[in-house]
Amino acid sequence: MNNARQNALEYARQNNERFLDELKEFLAIPSISTSPEKNADVQRGAEWVAGQLRSLGMDNVQIMPTGGHPVVYGEQLKAGKDAPTVLIYGHYDVQPVDPLDLWTSDPFKGEVRGDNLYARGSSDMKGQVIASFKAVESVVRTSGLPVNVKWLIEGEEEIGSLNLGEFIKKNKALLKADFCINPDAGLINKDSPTITYGLRGLAYFEIRVYGPDRDLHSGLFGGTVHNPAQALTELVAGMHDKKGRITLPGFYDNVRKSSKAERAEIARLPTTAKHFLKQTNVPALWGEPDYTPEERVSIRPTLEVNGLLSGFTGEGSKTVLPAWAMAKISCRLVPDQEPEEIHKKMVKYMKKHAPKTIRWEVKNLHNSGTAITERDSVGVEAMSKGLEQSWGKRPLFKREGGSIGVVVQLQKYAGVESVLTGFGLPEDNAHSPNEKLHLPTWRKGIDAFVHFFYNMGEL
Amino acid sequence: MNNARQNALEYARQNNERFLDELKEFLAIPSISTSPEKNADVQRGAEWVAGQLRSLGMDNVQIMPTGGHPVVYGEQLKAGKDAPTVLIYGHYDVQPVDPLDLWTSDPFKGEVRGDNLYARGSSDMKGQVIASFKAVESVVRTSGLPVNVKWLIEGEEEIGSLNLGEFIKKNKALLKADFCINPDAGLINKDSPTITYGLRGLAYFEIRVYGPDRDLHSGLFGGTVHNPAQALTELVAGMHDKKGRITLPGFYDNVRKSSKAERAEIARLPTTAKHFLKQTNVPALWGEPDYTPEERVSIRPTLEVNGLLSGFTGEGSKTVLPAWAMAKISCRLVPDQEPEEIHKKMVKYMKKHAPKTIRWEVKNLHNSGTAITERDSVGVEAMSKGLEQSWGKRPLFKREGGSIGVVVQLQKYAGVESVLTGFGLPEDNAHSPNEKLHLPTWRKGIDAFVHFFYNMGEL
Repeated sequence: MNNARQNALEYARQNNERFLDELKEFLAIPSISTSPEKNADVQRGAEWVAGQLRSLGMDNVQIMPTGGHPVVYGEQLKAGKDAPTVLIYGHYDVQPVDPLDLWTSDPFKGEVRGDNLYARGSSDMKGQVIASFKAVESVVRTSGLPVNVKWLIEGEEEIGSLNLGEFIKKNKALLKADFCINPDAGLINKDSPTITYGLRGLAYFEIRVYGPDRDLHSGLFGGTVHNPAQALTELVAGMHDKKGRITLPGFYDNVRKSSKAERAEIARLPTTAKHFLKQTNVPALWGEPDYTPEERVSIRPTLEVNGLLSGFTGEGSKTVLPAWAMAKISCRLVPDQEPEEIHKKMVKYMKKHAPKTIRWEVKNLHNSGTAITERDSVGVEAMSKGLEQSWGKRPLFKREGGSIGVVVQLQKYAGVESVLTGFGLPEDNAHSPNEKLHLPTWRKGIDAFVHFFYNMGEL
Repeated sequence: MNNARQNALEYARQNNERFLDELKEFLAIPSISTSPEKNADVQRGAEWVAGQLRSLGMDNVQIMPTGGHPVVYGEQLKAGKDAPTVLIYGHYDVQPVDPLDLWTSDPFKGEVRGDNLYARGSSDMKGQVIASFKAVESVVRTSGLPVNVKWLIEGEEEIGSLNLGEFIKKNKALLKADFCINPDAGLINKDSPTITYGLRGLAYFEIRVYGPDRDLHSGLFGGTVHNPAQALTELVAGMHDKKGRITLPGFYDNVRKSSKAERAEIARLPTTAKHFLKQTNVPALWGEPDYTPEERVSIRPTLEVNGLLSGFTGEGSKTVLPAWAMAKISCRLVPDQEPEEIHKKMVKYMKKHAPKTIRWEVKNLHNSGTAITERDSVGVEAMSKGLEQSWGKRPLFKREGGSIGVVVQLQKYAGVESVLTGFGLPEDNAHSPNEKLHLPTWRKGIDAFVHFFYNMGEL
């Protein structure tokens, strides 16, 4: 191992306690992008990130406005025109914290218990952002960066990167890079560093069913008025058949068929049925019988109920026949499905099945396309090698079940492909109470990033 | 018409202005049973009622304690052991008045505008209580009562008659009567005097479906974990077949078949499909095709979704796979269904249909039995004739879709069946701002009560 690399790794090790303190400072900002009452905190998050980039010696650091929450940009192009340019992506916004009473400690006061740091955003993804910052700091403070870097840190990932596409379109030249490193994807387990080469897309709907013009007395009208909550359950239940297949008309038409080779690669992943059972504590798994559990969450599209609301939901009993009922429903999509196409198919389903006894509407709340990246690129190779150097084993390659808007938008609007990795674990409770970050994995992640920069300089 | 009856009706006519003044006095007491800060007023209400009963020459007048607000009792048994005994029910408590700014006049200062008297409790049911008091006064002051009467005037009807069952159980002997007249039911419209002879019962459930041990990221687990909200919609949707019939095993086993004669009476009611459409503003009615809309809400049992809750229900989108989902479900029951039996059938349904991929529970939150009174009984006949004598037309007979606690409790604990009538109109704004009493209808009601007592003496 060369001296520069050794020194940077040593710097990272010696400064780790301070890195953790700075992460806690970042986590203390409740930058919940979906809550308008938190707008000032989201702004504070952006300012904190800009301050960090400046302290790392980045140039041209800017908080750039978008139609929603701002993007933080920064760069260091000292490696010169012949050196490759890496765009590093992150987001400084987080998910809401409700239900708050299920948290063991304050979601905005990072608390270390054992090997874990508990806080909203610790794993998704302030911890990952800090890992990339601190790896760069370790390299910059010891030898200097052997590559050019650019940063794109957004504030709307948790609400679907609503304005990022427009931003990327406008700033295509500024964001020009050989590839993007996106550490928002996570590891399969702490001993299996992972590179993700594909993502599912998303089409998110709110379906409302309207009945009478006000809540009615269920005794006086029950039996002769179609209960909107009942009608909604009928419509939602009908969206799957008995085998768990989705019944929206033509839903599977554009699903790309996976090759035997790809399915064989997926079969090597440790995410077996046992793994999913352990992760979730459900009494039994569910899903399409012709696919393995891992295939069902990666190469297959799904339809999920994200929320239900109707009528009386407090303690005890109230004999109301509700005026309306609502379901939040989202479809995870795979190449080559398009969100707009799925929206049309959802409306088609509703037109076909909604009874005449109710009124309904489908709102398309947000969309995200699918993505897939070639595995033999320079970026994949440098990161794959870095992970192997830090963990001592070759990483796994997988397709991710979630959606990451920026990956799709960078590909679509700036022609930049993403290499996805990250140091969050499946059991980190991302989006749930008691979100946490596994610190030993996080530290390995910082090292992997350090290696990545030196690998880039050598390739 | 005999002389005694004529004199009593004449007395009622001549004293009507004073009756109205006394009603206003009663209405001025804000006896809101649900508001602890009004406890002294509720007590004042009871004392006012006791004073009235004494002034009518009733014996054994008592304000009797219960676990909550007191019951006022009184009797006059001078007609002798061979004469029938009528129990007259009423309640002196009223609903809250908020939002106060929607009232045109002070809710506790009865104001006559046109044909109506506006005040909280004017229709529900201080006006009805005064009608029964003043009919008795008119008979007592002219010829004397040809029947024995007992009074049961409670102070907790608007909070579900919480302590009345226990009271009736304890005072079974005191309340012994041939039947009960309950004027809390109202008319269908001002030209249609109405007798209600049956009530639906209730079995109220909360069903919970549990999946993973916490909310999951729908992208990471969607497709391989059975979504509890989806499983709930499947279970709830399956509780009705395509014709709107309830599928709980054996649900209809104990439903008493209505005779042709009963269905012909129901067909006389003005509550047609048009009526229900106008009342609810739904695009089309719904329900069992073999029954009319009115039959569906009276002689047929139903299963309603009163509430749904799961996952994320706020503004916008959150891609969560919820840990649990809840439905509040209640069945309106008809004779001879029993709530306990329906609870068992609900559990049986869940055992049969709940998939192994989720856990579930059914809580039975609240039960109320059904009630039915034979239409050829002496009480129904005497009241039916009285209404006809006052209105000049035969009354309508109906079964009510809702539940009235005292009716079930009197039948269950004291063996006393109820004849339901009343002089309140659907447009009286009971429970709403600007509650009112239609005075011409109220006066006809006093006359009908006078006739009722003489009819009892003649039957």
